[in-house]
Formats: sequence, structure tokens, C-alpha cells
Amino acid sequence: MQPEMEQKKKSLKQRLVLKNSLAKEMLSEFLGTFIMIVLGCGSVAQAVLSRGHFGGILTINIGFPMAVVMAIYATGGVSGGHINPAVSFALCLFGRMKWSKLPFYMGAQFLGAFAGAATLFGIYYDALMSFADGKLLITGENATAQIFATYPAPYLTLINAFADQAVATMFLLIIVFAVFDSRNLGVPRGLQPIVIGLLIVVIASSLGMNSGCAMNPARDLSPRLFTALAGWGFEVFTVGNNFWWIPVVGPLVGGAIGGLVYVLFIEIHHSYPNPHFEVEQSEDKPEKYELNVIM
Amino acid sequence: MQPEMEQKKKSLKQRLVLKNSLAKEMLSEFLGTFIMIVLGCGSVAQAVLSRGHFGGILTINIGFPMAVVMAIYATGGVSGGHINPAVSFALCLFGRMKWSKLPFYMGAQFLGAFAGAATLFGIYYDALMSFADGKLLITGENATAQIFATYPAPYLTLINAFADQAVATMFLLIIVFAVFDSRNLGVPRGLQPIVIGLLIVVIASSLGMNSGCAMNPARDLSPRLFTALAGWGFEVFTVGNNFWWIPVVGPLVGGAIGGLVYVLFIEIHHSYPNPHFEVEQSEDKPEKYELNVIM
Amino acid sequence: MQPEMEQKKKSLKQRLVLKNSLAKEMLSEFLGTFIMIVLGCGSVAQAVLSRGHFGGILTINIGFPMAVVMAIYATGGVSGGHINPAVSFALCLFGRMKWSKLPFYMGAQFLGAFAGAATLFGIYYDALMSFADGKLLITGENATAQIFATYPAPYLTLINAFADQAVATMFLLIIVFAVFDSRNLGVPRGLQPIVIGLLIVVIASSLGMNSGCAMNPARDLSPRLFTALAGWGFEVFTVGNNFWWIPVVGPLVGGAIGGLVYVLFIEIHHSYPNPHFEVEQSEDKPEKYELNVIM
Amino acid sequence: MQPEMEQKKKSLKQRLVLKNSLAKEMLSEFLGTFIMIVLGCGSVAQAVLSRGHFGGILTINIGFPMAVVMAIYATGGVSGGHINPAVSFALCLFGRMKWSKLPFYMGAQFLGAFAGAATLFGIYYDALMSFADGKLLITGENATAQIFATYPAPYLTLINAFADQAVATMFLLIIVFAVFDSRNLGVPRGLQPIVIGLLIVVIASSLGMNSGCAMNPARDLSPRLFTALAGWGFEVFTVGNNFWWIPVVGPLVGGAIGGLVYVLFIEIHHSYPNPHFEVEQSEDKPEKYELNVIM
Repeated sequence: MQPEMEQKKKSLKQRLVLKNSLAKEMLSEFLGTFIMIVLGCGSVAQAVLSRGHFGGILTINIGFPMAVVMAIYATGGVSGGHINPAVSFALCLFGRMKWSKLPFYMGAQFLGAFAGAATLFGIYYDALMSFADGKLLITGENATAQIFATYPAPYLTLINAFADQAVATMFLLIIVFAVFDSRNLGVPRGLQPIVIGLLIVVIASSLGMNSGCAMNPARDLSPRLFTALAGWGFEVFTVGNNFWWIPVVGPLVGGAIGGLVYVLFIEIHHSYPNPHFEVEQSEDKPEKYELNVIM
Repeated sequence: MQPEMEQKKKSLKQRLVLKNSLAKEMLSEFLGTFIMIVLGCGSVAQAVLSRGHFGGILTINIGFPMAVVMAIYATGGVSGGHINPAVSFALCLFGRMKWSKLPFYMGAQFLGAFAGAATLFGIYYDALMSFADGKLLITGENATAQIFATYPAPYLTLINAFADQAVATMFLLIIVFAVFDSRNLGVPRGLQPIVIGLLIVVIASSLGMNSGCAMNPARDLSPRLFTALAGWGFEVFTVGNNFWWIPVVGPLVGGAIGGLVYVLFIEIHHSYPNPHFEVEQSEDKPEKYELNVIM
Repeated sequence: MQPEMEQKKKSLKQRLVLKNSLAKEMLSEFLGTFIMIVLGCGSVAQAVLSRGHFGGILTINIGFPMAVVMAIYATGGVSGGHINPAVSFALCLFGRMKWSKLPFYMGAQFLGAFAGAATLFGIYYDALMSFADGKLLITGENATAQIFATYPAPYLTLINAFADQAVATMFLLIIVFAVFDSRNLGVPRGLQPIVIGLLIVVIASSLGMNSGCAMNPARDLSPRLFTALAGWGFEVFTVGNNFWWIPVVGPLVGGAIGGLVYVLFIEIHHSYPNPHFEVEQSEDKPEKYELNVIM
Repeated sequence: MQPEMEQKKKSLKQRLVLKNSLAKEMLSEFLGTFIMIVLGCGSVAQAVLSRGHFGGILTINIGFPMAVVMAIYATGGVSGGHINPAVSFALCLFGRMKWSKLPFYMGAQFLGAFAGAATLFGIYYDALMSFADGKLLITGENATAQIFATYPAPYLTLINAFADQAVATMFLLIIVFAVFDSRNLGVPRGLQPIVIGLLIVVIASSLGMNSGCAMNPARDLSPRLFTALAGWGFEVFTVGNNFWWIPVVGPLVGGAIGGLVYVLFIEIHHSYPNPHFEVEQSEDKPEKYELNVIM
């Protein structure tokens, strides 16, 4: 590369570089949620659209968690790789992130998930058009709406549905808190995403039957909105006794409970103080703090 | 967070904090066994209740071991993450834990497993009610008792059943002892739970057919008792020629044999002494010791 | 071993040792691509030739990625383990490899893939001869050409096919760049191949249905050429509306986009400079540079 | 534990402790091969004896490799965890183990595999007795001999069978050499068994169809001999055109080729000398050497 080109490239770079730390984190959360939806919901798409020939419960239960793993690797060092409003909310609730950041994180997550749903629609456009003679259906054996958002099993009451989402997300957050608790067993740095991935594998295998185990408001609501607009219609919100709000509110409540369970059963009993606690109180070095606490 | 609220929170914390190390460990073992049962037996529940549509032998053989992995991550730094009376017993037998702790560990494990079974029953209440017209059956194609406890294959004699549980747990303990033997190959700190998980994957895939591979008195007896009380009836104890005591006694015997095999074949021949042996004899620094030996 | 034999062996060694660093890297890329094709396409072969009895979508979606993992372990310390012209191209484009090396890397990759296809043909010669009465077919239920190269689904238009390959490779490169970005979360040295393998698992599970997810010009074109010569005939190039060029050009374009996305969303916003950037500009220590940047 | 009991235990220990390093290594290789056969062939047993209800190609292709992983963890720090005469032979051939040790390693491996086969027979005695009305068959749909040893596919010629075993073992050794080459990419200490396990997963998924992918004389010959004696009869040696010698000789030849390929393509071109080469020549510190080179 010639020095002058290098020079030009650098100045272009300098114009693009974000100085604002929160803006960087929003870009990062956007990208992470985007990756998770394309590859995660893509695993569902492949199983549904191939009618089981190129996928099934196993490729979904491995594919979606590994999509989360990749999203965290792409973003973990910048924004902590939450890619889930329920995670960001629980972290704020237990003093691990400033509340002022929460709306920005959530906004980026919802936008990234919407963009991911749209991209996935594009990649599988031909397949969707040939699947049910071009019809985009929500129920029945030719349904495709469940590629994007989760729907409850026929037997499920609303109260059981809410408990399902709350309990599943509770387990998610108990282990997330454990994995990043340096005073517990811990996970070697750079391998936490793998453990989180395995965690989602087991939750999807054990608590996935009632309503598809969303555990993430952005993962569920944004793609649902996309399907409403893209041709499936607004019945995506009304089916299942207006099920749509369960995977939005349930995870927020369950995540809070999960954090509380971990703190009450394990964290507060540690006999020596958290080495990162002092940093938590200070306002300077925000990026370092994020890294320390989330990673 | 305002300073006064912080102050209040701290004093609430101070009231909740356990100073007693054994009490902490009991809470930890309770939580770990609880996690293992909800996510592990949950994997069986999903396969059974969906009649194979959302799970099968593979999701069970991956889901249960990964439930153990997550339980160890949640508790390993506090109580060693035994979550199994047969493990605690073998560790006492070979001088790796004080005998005085054993009843407390076991009690917490049995209680945690019972609470886990009850929670799982709640999460899948609607599914259980719709599965066999609300009937809770122990045998036949609509049986659901095997979600919670293990039952023997029809061909199995009691003596083969006992050998099965003893040998399976023997292999479990051989490798557990190897994984934590710093003078053998070893596993990087923080990744031992993954190796234990893979170990359970292979044991479930190879020695799981005779009687479901419980290898853990708490994992089997507490959920069995729960089903007896919750509506399946006390036949859960009598079927299979009173099989219930096999996965209680077999693992305790097998675990002891496994420890002995590892010690006789590998450990006593190491040419330099265990660096942790001195610590083992001392009474102070109990938490550190637990960490060193178990982790 | 006797000293004189040792002496003789050493002098033989000295004659074989390559002093030229680029020649070493070519040998390494050749070996890596060879391993990937034999074990990766071999996974497809086993599923196809056993008509699903010894393999299927899961063994393929695990086998091919793990073949990539093994190829990277065999070659990563010498040539970076690209084994993919689209990866080498993207690395050149973003200043991570010298352009002068690109044709040599690509040549070795195409040759290695051709040799791998020929070796696989030999290993399964008896099976191929007995599969369809010795006929080597490209389409229909007895087709075997898809063991070696990828073919599009019947519903797929060329434009969707191109987008499919470009987007899949975009995700591949986003995460490859993330995994080797020491200023992001990072992966412990020596474990990056595992993460790359899991990445290919999820891409194959989510974006593999349209056209088999080649994402690699050498992996697709060389085995296709081999089948044309080995008896399937040159229709392997014309079927699917002359599909053959899509998995050649699509990945090159998509890889470039993937690198760009990662740089724009994450890399240029890092608040401190890349510690390896200075090394990148210097011409000495070429091997060290390769290791630093690629590994 | 009371001091006097401790004293007594120690003196018992002292009587049992092996001072001879080779004897330790033999015990270790015996235990490792024993573990591999019980858990590995056990995975085949579960799939066969349950007629696919509790296992299949996936549980076998995951279970057998993970059995190897566990065997290496149990023995790697003492004897290097070869558990395979073809591995020991290749290591001798390329100066990584003294030839004088080879017969002792091989003997322990064959004995361990025989003991493992007998133990597995015991664990599944009831199941075997009920499977085909107590008949122990070698061929047909009720065959069970393939639980213990490998048999060729009907279409396979002897020359293709030999090439199959040689090539599969060649790939095994190429990657084993790579994984332990500290001048290549390398694998973090304590995680090499996992990578070896994943390697066997992919080889079993890609090159397992012709003849079951034994790649190990001890894994195949000792269990075959056991079945001949235990009731299947000596036809286990004659079926498949006297196939039995192929998985004995093929792996030894293929392992040697694999080592040679790795050395010629990668190892001899490294620009700086092997840091362990000097140690290799010296006769003192034999245990340390073993650890350095094999682990």
C-alpha cells in the first residue's frame, strides 16, 4: 500500500471513528443482535422451510445458541455483548450498568433484531415464496411465522406461559451472573461466550417446549413486528390469546429474579469483597468498568 | 443510586450475609442440585411430553450433562459443586472432605433435588395435565414418572441393575478424580465443568440403557418421592421389583470403587507428593482447601 | 537410534527443508485444504452413500466444520490456516496480508482441494461403484455429485443464490475478524479454531439450505472440476443455470463485505491503537507478523 | 482420620507404590484402554441393543470419541494417553518414544481392551441374553458382534478396506502430531484431549462407513478375541474375507504415513529448532520427557 493511499484511508477512517463511547456500544449491540437473529432465526427457518430435511430440533437447539455465541464474540469487548434487554435490565438493577445507558442499549437491540429479521427474509425470499405457494401463514402445517417470533403450545394457559418465560430467563441470568463472578469458579477469559452458548442449549432442550424459549424481548418483539409488516399480518400479535407481550415482560421479570437468586444464594456470602466494586462506584473509566463487570 | 439507599441496602445485605462457611456451602449445594434437576429432568420432560417432537435421546443426553455443567459453574467456587451424595461420599472416603460435613452436604442435595422436581412440575403443569387426560402414569406409553426418576428396562435383573449403577458411577468418579489431579494431565481452571459434562454425555450414551444412568442418589430419590406425593402414587417405589434403592445405594458403592481404582492405578504412583496434601491436614483456611482440592 | 543413522537422517532432512517462507506457507495451505476436503466432503459422502444410515444433516453440519478445525490446527502456525481464497482475499483487502502472496495462497488452496477430492474418490471407490450400479449421477435420488461440490435448491433464482453466498461469507468474515481482534473479547490462543468451527456449524445450520453453504471458492470449484474429469461429466458446471460460478465469486464479494462491516461497526472505533499495527507496516519478520495477525 | 490409621494407610500405600516408571505407564495404558472400550464400545452396545431407541449413529460418533477423551484425561499425565498401538508405534518411529517401551505399551493396551470388552459384556449381560433369545450372532439384523469389533461393509474389497484403515489412521496421526507441535498453532495444555476427541468425531463421520473406523489394533483385536471366546465363535475372525487383520495392520502403516506427512509438510520446515529436541536425546528425566513430548 502506497503511503499517500494509506494517508487518505486514515483520514477517511478518522471521519468515521466514533469518539462517543455510548455510540460505539449502540453500534455494537445493533450488530450483535443482528447477527443473533439472522443466524439464530435462520436455524429455525432452515428446519421449517426444508420441512425437516435440512434441520430439526437439534440444529435449532444448537444453531440458535451458537448464534448467540458468535454475537457475543463480535461485540463482547465493546458493549459486553448483552444483545438482550432482559440482560441489560438485570445488570442495571444489580448495579452493574448505569440506568442512563439502558434505553440506548435497548433501542439498539430492538433495531438490530428488526434489521436481522428483514435480512433473513431476504436470504430466504425464494424459499418462502415457494413454500406455501407464496402465502405467509401464522398457523397450520404451512405456517412460517414461527421462524421469526415464538408462539405458545395449544395447551398453554397465559399464567403458565408467563411463569415459563420468567423461570427460563431466571435460569439464564443465574448462570450469566455466575459465569462472570470472579469469586466463584469462573470461566477463562474469552471462553465465557461458549459457556453461555451451552447454557442456552440446555435451556432450549429443557424449557423450550411450552413457548419456544424466547427469553429476550428484542429477539421476539422486533421480528414479530417485522412479520406483521412483511405480509403475515397483525394477527401475529393476537394469536395465542394475545401472547406477544409474554416474551417481552416475562424475561424482564425473570431476569430480575434470576439476578436476585444468584445474589442471595451465592454472591453476598462471599467472604472477601468484589475486587471490581470500587470501580463500580466511580464515574471515570466507563469503558474499562464495562469490560471488567460484563466480561 | 443515592448514598442513603446504598447505605440501607448494605445493612440489609449485612443481615443476610452468612458468616458460617458450612451454611454457605449448604445454600450452594441446594442451588446447584435445584438447577440440575430443573434443567436436567426438564430435558427428559420436553422429550416425553412432546412425544419426541421437541426432544429425544440426543437432547436428553446433551441436556442433562449440560445441566450438571451449569450447576457446577453456579456453585463450584463455593461448595465444590458436588451436587451428588455419591461424589461427596467418595471425597470423604479418600480424605478430600471432612466427614463432619457429609450429612449437611447430603441434606442440601436431597432438598435441592426435591425443590427442583416441584418447580419442574409447575413449569410443565399445563403440559402434564393435557398429556394423558390429566392422568399421572408410571408405566405404559403415556407414562410420565420417568421424567423425574429412573426406572429399569424390562429385561434387567436386580443384580445386573446394581452392577450397572455401581459401574457407571465408578467411571464417573475415576474421571472426576483424574480431572482434579493436578499431577495428571489436568484441565485448565474454569473448564473442569465442561469436561465433567462431556463425561456424563458419554456415560449416558454408553451405560444409559439398562436403567437410565442416575449415578446420583439425590437426583433419583428426591424427585421419586416428589412424584409419589404429587399424584403418581407410591407405586413409584415398588415397580421394577422395588428398584428405587438401586440408584441410591449403587452409586455410593460405585463411587467408592471408582475413587479406589483411580488411586490404585494412578494416584499413589505419582513420583512427587501432592502439593495440596499439607493443606488437607490443616484445619484453618477451610474454604481455600475446599477450592484447592475440589476445584 | 545410532549416531550415524541420526547423522544421515539429519542430512536428508537438511535437503528437504524449505528455506523460503512462502514455499512453506504454500505446502501448509495445500495440506490444510486437502484435510478439509477429505474429512469435510467425506462427511457428505458418508451420509449420501449410506443413504442416511451412517450420517445425515447433523453429521454433515458437525463433520464439515470440525474438518475445518483440524485443517486449521494442522496449518495455523505456519500459514495462518486460511484454507479459503475468500479469507485470504479479505485479509489482503484489509491490510492483513501482502497482495503478492495472494496468488500463491490461492494456487495452493485450489490444488489441495483437488487432491483432497481425488483422495476421497479413492477411499469411497467401492462404495461409489456399488451405489448406483457404477453410474456417477448429478441429479436424482441416486446423485453423488453433491458429495464434492454444492448445487442450488430447485426454487433458487441466481440473484438469491448470489446473495446467499455473499451473505453467508459476510458472516463468516465478520466473526473471523472478531475472533482475531485482540482489542475485542478475544479467544484464548490455540482455541480460535474451535470457535471458527462452531461458527461454521451455525452458518451451515441457518444458511445452508439454499445452496449448501460453500463459502469457499477452492472448496467448491476444485472438487467440481475433479468430478467433471472423474466421470460425472461437465454437466456439473451447467446444471442449476450454470450455478458453478456463484460459490466462486459470491464468497469473494461477501468476504470483502464482511471485513468491511466488522471494521466499520467495531474495529475503527477502538479507543487505543492496534498493538500489531506497526509490525504490519514493516517488511522484516514476515513469519512473526503472519502469526500475530492471523493467529 | 486418626494419626495411627493415617500411618497404617501410608505404609500400605508404600507397599503398593510402583517405583518403576515403565510399570506405572503400563498400568496407566491398561486403565486408559479399559475406559475407552467400556465407554466407547458401550456407545455401540446401547445403540445396537436398544434397536436405535437409546442411541444411533450420532450417540456412537459422539460417545466413542468422548470415551477416548476421558481415557486420555485419566492417563495423559502418566503414560501420554496413547491407548493405541498405532500411536505408540508412530511415536517410536519418529523418535518421540524409545523403542524398548513399545512392547510394554502394546501389551498393556491389548490387555486393557480385553478387560474392557469383558466388563462391557457383564454390564449388558441381561440385555444381550434378551436381545436375540440369548443367541450371540455375527451377521444379520440380530447381530451383536459389531458391538465389540468392526466389520466391513458388504461392498468393500480387501484392498479398499486396507486403504480405508491406512488413510483414516494417517489423518489421525497428522493431527495428533500437529496438536502436540509447540511450534505450530498448538492447543492449550489440558485441552488437547478435547481436540483429539473432536478429531475422532469428524473421522468417524467422514471415513466411518467402509469398515467402522477402528484405527487402533488394540481397540479391534482384543474385543474380537473376547467375542470369539465368549460365545460368538471364531467366525468373528473369518467373516468378511478374513477381515480381522486389516484394522490391525492398516492403522500401523497409516499411522507411520501420517507422521511422515506431517513431518514432511510442516515440521521439518520450522525455522527454529524444537525446544524439546535436546531433552529427547537424553536418558535422564524420562517422565518429564514423556510429558513434554506427548502432552
